[in-house]
Amino acid sequence: MFIDRRDLHDHNVHRPLQAGISGTRSEGADSICISGGYVDDEDHGDFIIYTGHGGQDTDGTHVRDQSLESPGNAGLLTSEVIGLPIRVIRKADKSNPFAPAAGYRYDGLYLVTSSWMETGRDGFQIARFRLDRIYEQQVLEPAAQVVPDPAYATTTVTRRIRDSVMAREIKDLYGFHCQVCGLAVPAFDGRTYAEGAHVRPLGRPHLGHDVKTNLLCLCPNHHTQLDTGGLFITDDAVAIDASTRSAIAVLRWRKDHRVSVDNFRYQREELWSFPDM
Amino acid sequence: MFIDRRDLHDHNVHRPLQAGISGTRSEGADSICISGGYVDDEDHGDFIIYTGHGGQDTDGTHVRDQSLESPGNAGLLTSEVIGLPIRVIRKADKSNPFAPAAGYRYDGLYLVTSSWMETGRDGFQIARFRLDRIYEQQVLEPAAQVVPDPAYATTTVTRRIRDSVMAREIKDLYGFHCQVCGLAVPAFDGRTYAEGAHVRPLGRPHLGHDVKTNLLCLCPNHHTQLDTGGLFITDDAVAIDASTRSAIAVLRWRKDHRVSVDNFRYQREELWSFPDM
Repeated sequence: MFIDRRDLHDHNVHRPLQAGISGTRSEGADSICISGGYVDDEDHGDFIIYTGHGGQDTDGTHVRDQSLESPGNAGLLTSEVIGLPIRVIRKADKSNPFAPAAGYRYDGLYLVTSSWMETGRDGFQIARFRLDRIYEQQVLEPAAQVVPDPAYATTTVTRRIRDSVMAREIKDLYGFHCQVCGLAVPAFDGRTYAEGAHVRPLGRPHLGHDVKTNLLCLCPNHHTQLDTGGLFITDDAVAIDASTRSAIAVLRWRKDHRVSVDNFRYQREELWSFPDM
Repeated sequence: MFIDRRDLHDHNVHRPLQAGISGTRSEGADSICISGGYVDDEDHGDFIIYTGHGGQDTDGTHVRDQSLESPGNAGLLTSEVIGLPIRVIRKADKSNPFAPAAGYRYDGLYLVTSSWMETGRDGFQIARFRLDRIYEQQVLEPAAQVVPDPAYATTTVTRRIRDSVMAREIKDLYGFHCQVCGLAVPAFDGRTYAEGAHVRPLGRPHLGHDVKTNLLCLCPNHHTQLDTGGLFITDDAVAIDASTRSAIAVLRWRKDHRVSVDNFRYQREELWSFPDM
């Protein structure tokens, strides 16, 4: 618990005295403060739909579009891309059941798991970020009977993906070969590894479907690249490297499997604002 | 809750009537039954150190070495490599605080996160598997007040890695370039992505250290390959593809960073039994 923004600053919990986001494009963001300042914020406790910085008048009204280039918003994007955890601080707010009764409270570490632009309630474009609380921490409500494995305190999350049944079927269909580059990552004793990649994410607010028309079989590198906005797929199923804007490959397809053009468009346009393809 | 092995079989929860592991090398394992049959098993509730199949006499004494080639053990290895979740069933066992009072209980989904060979209490080689319970499920103890985000019911885990501070520093040192292949995975708007890979795992029982002499900066593909036993590193820091046994690359090093030969050896010999290098 902290008394005010100065108290947060002095303890290096949230350094800026006014801004809601602490961070920069190159370093990533390291903390956010949820103060109820944006009507579009949604606090669900374990996950948050957070509105980016900027575009507001002095009285808090949105008067222009937000940009992903402002330091705070660019910092949250960098944190999403590189997987940097974010400290979340909640300010007292009677309208928010997850906020403390008074002052400011540090509520643990979250990951930015998704980002996109949308039209806010005031009619201007706003940057939006989904943050998910990291599980291997004390729960928000004091209910911990289970003593956690101390190893978790320092372990990073396992990189391997737990696939849905549908993703398993897609990987089997392609024999664990990446649809972009054809690689099947070698593993122990002749086994191979691939991942089922959802083109439109399943979580809120995107609510993509766990169906084959939303799934690709990819190697971890191209899955990462797709998820972090470094790879786009045209309506004609050509994979484009976002940094060079040049074609990498035409996706390899097996009989009876195609991904819906709507899902490719969602990933390009709604998630990463790449409409001009 | 289930009455007996026949009951588990009839409900397709655990198909074999006697074997503790259900699965094959090609399909992977889909369920295990913890019955207290192996003195070496360690049940910690949220994670389990499980002993593989085989090597026992009719009275349960180990009389010969276990092998990773038997169907059950090979199935658990495949599940580790491809990330297939495993149903865990516990049999009543007064000596185990996590076991039910009577009959058999289905306790949810676990992932195989590590496997290795070691000498068991009876003096023979046994196959060992660490299984970690998947977090986004009901907790084992009935204590759930927090209503989970329904999206979790179908979401796969985020692929992005939450790095330790040390891993972050290693990635910065290499500018997010893989030490094996040199690739920096492109992400949104010119950002790049890499992962901090622990050579000797941090979790029990390996208890590697979160230090730079145990960390590499890798692309997701080579991190996956290292973690799934498809990549080994010689004492001279040459990366070897396990399937072809040929050299891929000499690791790229920055000034003042080296990984300890002991950690390379641990990954080769203790984790994946590749002593002949």
